Amino acid sequence: MNVNGQHFQSIWFDESDDSVNIIDQTRLPHRFEIVTLNTLHDACHAIESMKVRGAPLIGVTAVYGVYLALLEDPNQLAVAVDRLAATRPTAINLQWALDRMNAALRNTLVEKRVEVALQQARAIDAEDSAICAEIGAQGAKLLREIWDAKLDQSKSLNVLTHCNAGALAAVDWGTALSVIYKAAEEGVPIHVWVDETRPRNQGASLTCWELGQQGIAHTLIVDNAGGHLMQQGLVDCCVVGSDRTTITGDVCNKIGTYLKALAAFDNDVPFFVALPVSSIDFTLTDGIKEIPIEERDAEEVSHLSGIDADGLLSKIRLCPEGVAVSNFGFDVTPARLVTKIITEKGVFDAQESQLQLLRS
Amino acid sequence: MNVNGQHFQSIWFDESDDSVNIIDQTRLPHRFEIVTLNTLHDACHAIESMKVRGAPLIGVTAVYGVYLALLEDPNQLAVAVDRLAATRPTAINLQWALDRMNAALRNTLVEKRVEVALQQARAIDAEDSAICAEIGAQGAKLLREIWDAKLDQSKSLNVLTHCNAGALAAVDWGTALSVIYKAAEEGVPIHVWVDETRPRNQGASLTCWELGQQGIAHTLIVDNAGGHLMQQGLVDCCVVGSDRTTITGDVCNKIGTYLKALAAFDNDVPFFVALPVSSIDFTLTDGIKEIPIEERDAEEVSHLSGIDADGLLSKIRLCPEGVAVSNFGFDVTPARLVTKIITEKGVFDAQESQLQLLRS
Repeated sequence: MNVNGQHFQSIWFDESDDSVNIIDQTRLPHRFEIVTLNTLHDACHAIESMKVRGAPLIGVTAVYGVYLALLEDPNQLAVAVDRLAATRPTAINLQWALDRMNAALRNTLVEKRVEVALQQARAIDAEDSAICAEIGAQGAKLLREIWDAKLDQSKSLNVLTHCNAGALAAVDWGTALSVIYKAAEEGVPIHVWVDETRPRNQGASLTCWELGQQGIAHTLIVDNAGGHLMQQGLVDCCVVGSDRTTITGDVCNKIGTYLKALAAFDNDVPFFVALPVSSIDFTLTDGIKEIPIEERDAEEVSHLSGIDADGLLSKIRLCPEGVAVSNFGFDVTPARLVTKIITEKGVFDAQESQLQLLRS
Repeated sequence: MNVNGQHFQSIWFDESDDSVNIIDQTRLPHRFEIVTLNTLHDACHAIESMKVRGAPLIGVTAVYGVYLALLEDPNQLAVAVDRLAATRPTAINLQWALDRMNAALRNTLVEKRVEVALQQARAIDAEDSAICAEIGAQGAKLLREIWDAKLDQSKSLNVLTHCNAGALAAVDWGTALSVIYKAAEEGVPIHVWVDETRPRNQGASLTCWELGQQGIAHTLIVDNAGGHLMQQGLVDCCVVGSDRTTITGDVCNKIGTYLKALAAFDNDVPFFVALPVSSIDFTLTDGIKEIPIEERDAEEVSHLSGIDADGLLSKIRLCPEGVAVSNFGFDVTPARLVTKIITEKGVFDAQESQLQLLRS
């Protein structure tokens, strides 16, 4: 992705000083800060505190976390894998990435582990970027079709997205936003409705910033607004990501996605979900019953951070002191509401017979 | 309503000094401040700046605004009515209340107008309170039925509400929350899921405060959460208000209501709308096409106010500087998603044949 005209990834290995670096996403959009991860603890903390977030990026950060853990102590492979696996419960890429590292390392001689871990991590890093670029290319065809069929081409193609499934949610490109970037590259004039995505406001803070940096037109809306916009014909399609997808096509994504899928269905607006095959959990058939939904800290709901009138980062409380709060991080959109699932291997209906083809 | 154990209305005429007073709702929940309205300008500003809000309370404030205008100049009846009618476009009670004042005053001798205006205003004030209490009594029967039918009575009746349709949205009692207060008075153990209701957070700031003052159990959630809670069986019914209702049963309420109605329908959760008959616009048959939806200031989305770490009221910016923002204030929930309409005249299906009975 571009940041002030320079190419960045959300996580990268710097060969000049052998360091693992991330963009601290808790500081965006107000501050652009790079943080170096030095230890297993750093990697776990970066995931838990959401300095890095987004299913693909969580996976790649965990992979580098294994490397950093082995740098500290090449005998702590199992400990590192268990510790990293416990950082976030919902996204399945995390487990997938750790399984890959474990498979590559558990039979590797201890003295070779650091070297192999770094090779693996860098390979997964490069692979994630290539997968996300391909998700974009596959999905861009769908946006192109909708644009070509749109009667009034005096305006833009209006795409609604929820949360941040962009380059900041992966190593680069992203999933849902990759579709938008690739369609824009191909000449489709796109305007994005950005759900602010309470409680953590990844839309307002990350997606707005990322789209602004890439020069894609966008408008910030509250999460409550999408239904009205769809009723009024102001949304041509929705594109979101997924943190875990069942073999039957249920998608688990940031809380509130289900409400947008309902509105899209009610208004005949196509609802696309863009995801890497690694986010499909081939063991699950009922997302609502089977996917564990993370519950997070009450303060994410009761408080918000931003820039005050003096330009300083400030945190404020929004509700009466001591109010009880519930804070589920994700919800499940049943397959019947999903128009198409976009992967690096092509576009599929949200049906078991189709998604089974992706089982490797 | 109770405030620290003392009875308050949201607006009241104080006989001791002939003053019109309101609770400044822009300061809640952090400060409880009473403001005296002295002029037409004060009344208009209170409505436009949302020191008072909620369809019934807007109507009653406008009525007192006419009185204050005539105190300044008994010849400015038409000017005052026009000025007040322009403050908020969506709620229909405002027009209904002004029509009543105009009808009572336009043929009244100029020297009698102040006296008649005050009589009328106080009558409408008292009437609003009585109507809201009766809405509560009518709706409480529905909650009682659901509670009686609930298999697991070890817990509470879980009611989800959006925005603030409580005593703070009317003179007293409210509409949706009146139903809850009356059911609680009758012994139904109620727990309320409170949507924070972005962008202005009337749920987080007003409903949480109001329910806390009345001693009703409640939990604050983000607007994105309700669909997940309904999928998981954690919501027994929804109760919301309406700012304008078509004769066909479409309801226009705070933006985001439609999304909750979709989720309720998808999960077989009853969706009740509580409203005074004065909020029915008997001239409209298609809410989505015909009801004007207010667009408000971008800063309501880009910025939020709250209490900072030092206990001071502070406003922060949530998104990159200069982001484009769209801010529609209301949306329309089509009648097909409304289980019952609760009025002071009884409970009705959201159908023209039923609502026609309410035409006076």
